[in-house]
Amino acid sequence: MIIDCHGHYTTAPPALEAWRKQQVASLSDPSSAPDPADLVISDQDLRDSVEANQLRLMDERGIDVTIFSPRASFMAHHVGTFETSAEWASICNELCYRVSQLYPERFVPAAMLPQSPGVDPATCIPELVRCVEEYGAVALNLNPDPSGGFWSSPPLTDRSWYPIYEKMVEYDIPAMIHVSTSVNPAFHTTGAHYLNADTTAFMQLVQGDLFADFPTLRFVIPHGGGAVPYHWGRFRGLAMALGKPPLEEHLLGNVFFDTCVYHQPGIDLLLDVIPTRNVLFASEMIGAVRDIDPGTGNYFDDTRRYIDHADLSADARTDVQERNARLVYPRLDALLAGQGR
Amino acid sequence: MIIDCHGHYTTAPPALEAWRKQQVASLSDPSSAPDPADLVISDQDLRDSVEANQLRLMDERGIDVTIFSPRASFMAHHVGTFETSAEWASICNELCYRVSQLYPERFVPAAMLPQSPGVDPATCIPELVRCVEEYGAVALNLNPDPSGGFWSSPPLTDRSWYPIYEKMVEYDIPAMIHVSTSVNPAFHTTGAHYLNADTTAFMQLVQGDLFADFPTLRFVIPHGGGAVPYHWGRFRGLAMALGKPPLEEHLLGNVFFDTCVYHQPGIDLLLDVIPTRNVLFASEMIGAVRDIDPGTGNYFDDTRRYIDHADLSADARTDVQERNARLVYPRLDALLAGQGR
Repeated sequence: MIIDCHGHYTTAPPALEAWRKQQVASLSDPSSAPDPADLVISDQDLRDSVEANQLRLMDERGIDVTIFSPRASFMAHHVGTFETSAEWASICNELCYRVSQLYPERFVPAAMLPQSPGVDPATCIPELVRCVEEYGAVALNLNPDPSGGFWSSPPLTDRSWYPIYEKMVEYDIPAMIHVSTSVNPAFHTTGAHYLNADTTAFMQLVQGDLFADFPTLRFVIPHGGGAVPYHWGRFRGLAMALGKPPLEEHLLGNVFFDTCVYHQPGIDLLLDVIPTRNVLFASEMIGAVRDIDPGTGNYFDDTRRYIDHADLSADARTDVQERNARLVYPRLDALLAGQGR
Repeated sequence: MIIDCHGHYTTAPPALEAWRKQQVASLSDPSSAPDPADLVISDQDLRDSVEANQLRLMDERGIDVTIFSPRASFMAHHVGTFETSAEWASICNELCYRVSQLYPERFVPAAMLPQSPGVDPATCIPELVRCVEEYGAVALNLNPDPSGGFWSSPPLTDRSWYPIYEKMVEYDIPAMIHVSTSVNPAFHTTGAHYLNADTTAFMQLVQGDLFADFPTLRFVIPHGGGAVPYHWGRFRGLAMALGKPPLEEHLLGNVFFDTCVYHQPGIDLLLDVIPTRNVLFASEMIGAVRDIDPGTGNYFDDTRRYIDHADLSADARTDVQERNARLVYPRLDALLAGQGR
C-alpha cells in the first residue's frame, strides 16, 4: 500500500472560491457577509473535482490513500479576524470530510485550524475537536506564521502553542507544519515562504526542548524539510554549538519529513541523510508544481518515481511508502485496519 | 590556487565590539556617542586576530586567498539610522582593508554597505565607491532584508535597488546576497534566517527579469544557495509555471552558489545539480559552525575536504576552486595577475 501523507483539496469546485471572495469582501462591508448555508456544493461536484484530478493521478501513480486537507494557500489565516478563519476553516474541513466519505478507502481528512494572527492558538481547539471526533481527522495542519509572511508569532516552542500540543497528545495525532499564502512581497508563496517555514520550524525545534515536555508529540515537516536535509551538517553543528544532544536523539523521535522534493537528486539526498524511519511518502499533488519535467518526460510532482528509483531496499521502501505513515498517524492505521487493510 | 570567496572578519579584536556597543547604547543617549577615532586597533592586534584563526585554518586547509568582508551577523543594519550604519560600515570596511594590506596575498576585501531599513539603497553608493576605489574591494555584500528578519524591503528586482546594480556594473563587481542578524524571534540567525534569505533571493530572481536590465550583473548566493539546489526540480517547475525560460538561461549566466554546505552529501548534490561553472569554493570560516563533526573527525566547515572527495574531474575542481572566482570577481583576477599569480 502507498500512503500519500500530504494532499490538499486544491481543486475544490469554483463555488468555494466565490464564497470566500464574498466573505473577504464583506470584511469592509459586513452587510454583504455570505451565509455558510449559501454555499451549495453537491456530492457530484465533489466527485467531479477529485475524479478528474487527484483520484486520477493517484490511480495512475499507484497511490492508495491520501491524507487530505484544505488547500494550504487558501487557508490565508492573515485575512480578517478569528471569526473569519473559524467560518472558513469549518467550511473547508467539512468539504474534505465529505470527500473522505465519498471515497473512504482513498481520502482521509486532516484538519485546517482557524488560526488568526495575534490570537491565542487555544481558540483553535473546538474546530480541532470537531474534526477529529466528527470527521475522523487523523492529523492537523499547523501554521507557524498565521500573519502570512510577516512572522509575528512566537516560535513553535513557545508555551502559547501548548494547548494545541496537549490536544494532539490526547488524540495521538501529528501536525504537519504548513504555512499559507505569503502576502509579504519578499516571499513567493510556494518558492520561498513554504520552504523557509520548513527550515524555520525545524531550527526552532533545534533551539528548544519541546519534546522534553511532550515526548509523544509528532510533527511532519513538508517539502522534504525545506533546506534541512541539504544542510544537515550545518544543523548538526548548530545543535552542538547550542549544547543540544545529537539531532537523532534531540528531534528525530518526533520530527518527520515528507518526500515532496521534485527531482531525483533531492530525494536521493533526503534518503541518504535522514533515517528511513523519519521519511514519509508524499507528493502534495495537485500542488505548487504541476508541469511535466522536460528533462524526464514525467510530472515534477510524481514523487513515486523518485522513490522507485532511489537506492532503497524493498523493506525500506515499504517503510517510506506505508509503515512510517501508519506509525506517525495511528488513527490512519486504525482506520485502515478497520477496512481490513 | 584555492580561492575562498566567502570569509568574514568574525574574529576582530574585542575593542571593535566594545565600540559598537557604545554606539548602540548612544542611540538613546546621543551625548555618549563614541568617536570613531576612539577605536584604536593596532596592526599587531589585527595580525593576532587572523593569524590565530582564519590564516591558521587557511594554511591548514590549503586555502590561498580569502575574499574578506565584515562579520555578517554584526552588520545589524536594523540598528539605528542610516548614519549609524554609515559610521559602522566605514569602520568595519577599513579594518578588512587593513587586514588585506597586512596580508596582500591572502585577504582581499569585500565591502559591507551602510544599509538601513526603509532608506533608499542609493545612499550606500558613497561607501561602496570608497571601498572599491580606495580599498580595492572586489565585491560587496548586499542585504536583502536590512530590517533583521521582518522583510520589509521590496524584492531585489525592485527598481529601488537599481542604483547599486548600476554601480556594480560600472565597476564590474559581484554582490554576495547576505543578510545579517535576525532580531525576529521566529528566525535563528544562522540556522534559519541565512538559509531563508538565500532561498528567498533566488526565488525573487526567478520571478523577475532583472538580468534583462543588467545582463552583466552577478550575484553569489551563499550557503550553497539555501534550499535551492535541493529543490532544483521545484524551482525549474515554478519557472515554467511563471512562463520564464529554463533556469540555466534565465539566471545561471548571472547567479552563482558558494560551497558553504557542511557535509559531503550536500556538496555532492550541489555539484550534481548545479553546473560546475556556477559553483564557487567557500567555507565561511570562521563562521556559524565551528565544531568538529564527530562523525568524520574533521571540522564541519572544512569544505575543502568535501570538494576533494566530490566526484569532479581535476579540471572541474580547478573551476570550482579558482577559475570561477576569477571570472565572477574580475577585480580579484586582476589583483592576482598583478601579483604574478
